[in-house]
Amino acid sequence: MPAPLRIGLAGLGTVGIGVVKIVQSHADLIAARAGRPVEITAVSARDPQKNRDADLSTYHWEADPVALARRNDIDVFVEVMGGHEGPARLATEAAIATGKDIVTANKALLAHHGHALALAAEAAGRVIRFEAAVAGGIPVIKTLTEGLAGNQMRRVMGVMNGTCNYILTRMQAAGLPYETVFEEARQLGYLEADPNLDVGGIDAGHKLSLLAAIAFGTRVSFDNVELEGIGNVSIDDINLADDMGYHIKLLGVAQMTGRGLEQRMTPCLVPAESPLGQLQGGTNMVVLEGDSVGQIVMRGAGAGAGPTASAVMADVIDIARGTRLSTFGRPAASLAEPVAAKSATPAPYYLRMTLLDKPGALAKIATALGEAGISIDQMRQLNQPNEADNKATVLIVTHKASPADVAYALAQFDTTGVLIGAPAAIRIEEV
Amino acid sequence: MPAPLRIGLAGLGTVGIGVVKIVQSHADLIAARAGRPVEITAVSARDPQKNRDADLSTYHWEADPVALARRNDIDVFVEVMGGHEGPARLATEAAIATGKDIVTANKALLAHHGHALALAAEAAGRVIRFEAAVAGGIPVIKTLTEGLAGNQMRRVMGVMNGTCNYILTRMQAAGLPYETVFEEARQLGYLEADPNLDVGGIDAGHKLSLLAAIAFGTRVSFDNVELEGIGNVSIDDINLADDMGYHIKLLGVAQMTGRGLEQRMTPCLVPAESPLGQLQGGTNMVVLEGDSVGQIVMRGAGAGAGPTASAVMADVIDIARGTRLSTFGRPAASLAEPVAAKSATPAPYYLRMTLLDKPGALAKIATALGEAGISIDQMRQLNQPNEADNKATVLIVTHKASPADVAYALAQFDTTGVLIGAPAAIRIEEV
Repeated sequence: MPAPLRIGLAGLGTVGIGVVKIVQSHADLIAARAGRPVEITAVSARDPQKNRDADLSTYHWEADPVALARRNDIDVFVEVMGGHEGPARLATEAAIATGKDIVTANKALLAHHGHALALAAEAAGRVIRFEAAVAGGIPVIKTLTEGLAGNQMRRVMGVMNGTCNYILTRMQAAGLPYETVFEEARQLGYLEADPNLDVGGIDAGHKLSLLAAIAFGTRVSFDNVELEGIGNVSIDDINLADDMGYHIKLLGVAQMTGRGLEQRMTPCLVPAESPLGQLQGGTNMVVLEGDSVGQIVMRGAGAGAGPTASAVMADVIDIARGTRLSTFGRPAASLAEPVAAKSATPAPYYLRMTLLDKPGALAKIATALGEAGISIDQMRQLNQPNEADNKATVLIVTHKASPADVAYALAQFDTTGVLIGAPAAIRIEEV
Repeated sequence: MPAPLRIGLAGLGTVGIGVVKIVQSHADLIAARAGRPVEITAVSARDPQKNRDADLSTYHWEADPVALARRNDIDVFVEVMGGHEGPARLATEAAIATGKDIVTANKALLAHHGHALALAAEAAGRVIRFEAAVAGGIPVIKTLTEGLAGNQMRRVMGVMNGTCNYILTRMQAAGLPYETVFEEARQLGYLEADPNLDVGGIDAGHKLSLLAAIAFGTRVSFDNVELEGIGNVSIDDINLADDMGYHIKLLGVAQMTGRGLEQRMTPCLVPAESPLGQLQGGTNMVVLEGDSVGQIVMRGAGAGAGPTASAVMADVIDIARGTRLSTFGRPAASLAEPVAAKSATPAPYYLRMTLLDKPGALAKIATALGEAGISIDQMRQLNQPNEADNKATVLIVTHKASPADVAYALAQFDTTGVLIGAPAAIRIEEV
């Protein structure tokens, strides 16, 4: 049997220990599938004394991940530390410079520096694989890069932050406001140290930008993702949407249009009966649309030790088998700088607003919509629990309208003098 | 740029022309992704005169696919003719013998001769790829072989014959009996020339046997698939199952147990709200369960020119990129002869029977179940439209029982003298 593939593993948190456990428990299975043994040679983590529920005694220890990356007794540098600057970046660069292949779960690093890293890796004849960086255990990077390689991709969508989906489905199931469920999620340890990475849509936006680069042959362009988190999604909107047959999801959409590449990660209404609409809790789903294949839907665990380590090991085994691919599915030098387009693809919109309950108020809103060129599909004035407070909640579903026209209409609403507070406007994505 | 990869395409039916169209329309895209051009050099089909809605004028023509396979100006033999003996088998063998890689959509060929072909290909240093053979456009072979390679697989399930799923969902939606919808499907051209390949579960059984070989590292063992088609699924059962929150699907299940490999392709009840239960029409779904990744669900078009050609091209592009994998994910010589186990994994069962409406009838049935060691979860006597006919329909849902115990109970029912006709017994698969 050929020589073992030797791993240097940087990061011994949940995912890192998950990798250790697979390598140790499935050594024979992996050797049979890979055609050669896969071994861990050396590891790196901040605290070597910490009890990690795994036998690490046969591995070399490095305090510094950069020193680990430079060791000459490893073939693959596996980075599961996280963070898009500092040690993760320096160690990955050092690994490439010293001739290692890279397997990483680090979406932030690739969203910010993926193009430069891909150029460096390809110049050095090395590969960067990142299945674990997007949608946890779902092999979506492989599916898009390889399984659908004969397709001109049309659209890529996904619910790719399990914490956000947990919060939204828990709000709906328990009828609780955002703030309460956010606090629950924090106490359950579901949130990143900086919660805005989750609820601000940043983590999911990182993932979307990686999928878009592969799907459309463009350089990763995270800065052009239109980001809107879930902090403004109210339990009222969740309930009203549900009444109309929709669920609210933090949905990423990337599509190439005549104007350029649209990437958005925003709360959307999707039909409750659709696969995306039915997604509960921390599960992830990715929808890939190609011109030949039509729509492929993939669903699975988006996080956790086992699923994420499964994705890391798929990349490691590919490398052990001798599979060599460009980082984003074609040579990095051939990736085009994307023309970033502000979202202009029309969609129906859900609008909820509170109006002064006086004659002509609704007419002013309808007029503002008409002036913006937006026609109304459904409109409902909701019964008020207390009519004495002299206000009325109005729900409107528009026919397809461009985001710019909706923004214009919302600005016009402000001038009517009949609006109380800010209206909610949520895109209804056709899935 | 490196030399083109040259295809010899055997079969110019729907799928073959689908391949031609992708190669012609996406030449630049494929070259960018594959790192080299992909070209069709020569083709083979029965009737060269037939109008095929594609420009084939620049390709060499061979009347005989074996002659095509032997040409020295092709690198990859793409077989989309079908049939597990005759020209498809001979041409594939000839292609391997003359040093070509193989891409095939032919599930029957691989289910019957996959092991011998894999041995021959590996001895010759060639690869056999067959993404298009299972679940159409869904990249399930790649996902299982590569994307989940770090997992000990636990169970593989799938709805993999679109025609059967069309028939079952159409029966339910329209309230029509099997025979009527079967005839509709025939007239719509959904059925194979030998309809038993579809409705008898054979085509789907072929696919399941290929997935099982990859998942469990065993030789393809189609003969050991327990096959039951959909011909006995009645509209009554569909409606009664629906009332209880289940849909009936032709579901394939492969799992490795302590007794050996269980493979079955049979009608099953699955929860209506589950992803499998919600699958409508000709769409396919595959569920892959691994020890680290948990459950991965993939959904997409299971047939048709575009989806199937998409899968063929993924394999072609992999070969163009230089990816070399063993046919079933590990060297064929290392695949174990499976210990075939008759299904023994317990499950709840749905039982429907017609009884003589006389005192003690139901007690005899309940006693027979008890003697078989089967306990009852739910039992309902259905109201009869006409009580004068002196019979009653009884519906029983059992707790988990082994298939052997259920078979024993059914045999005991026969001896009670209270049964009219044969009972229906359908497994309720936990998905």
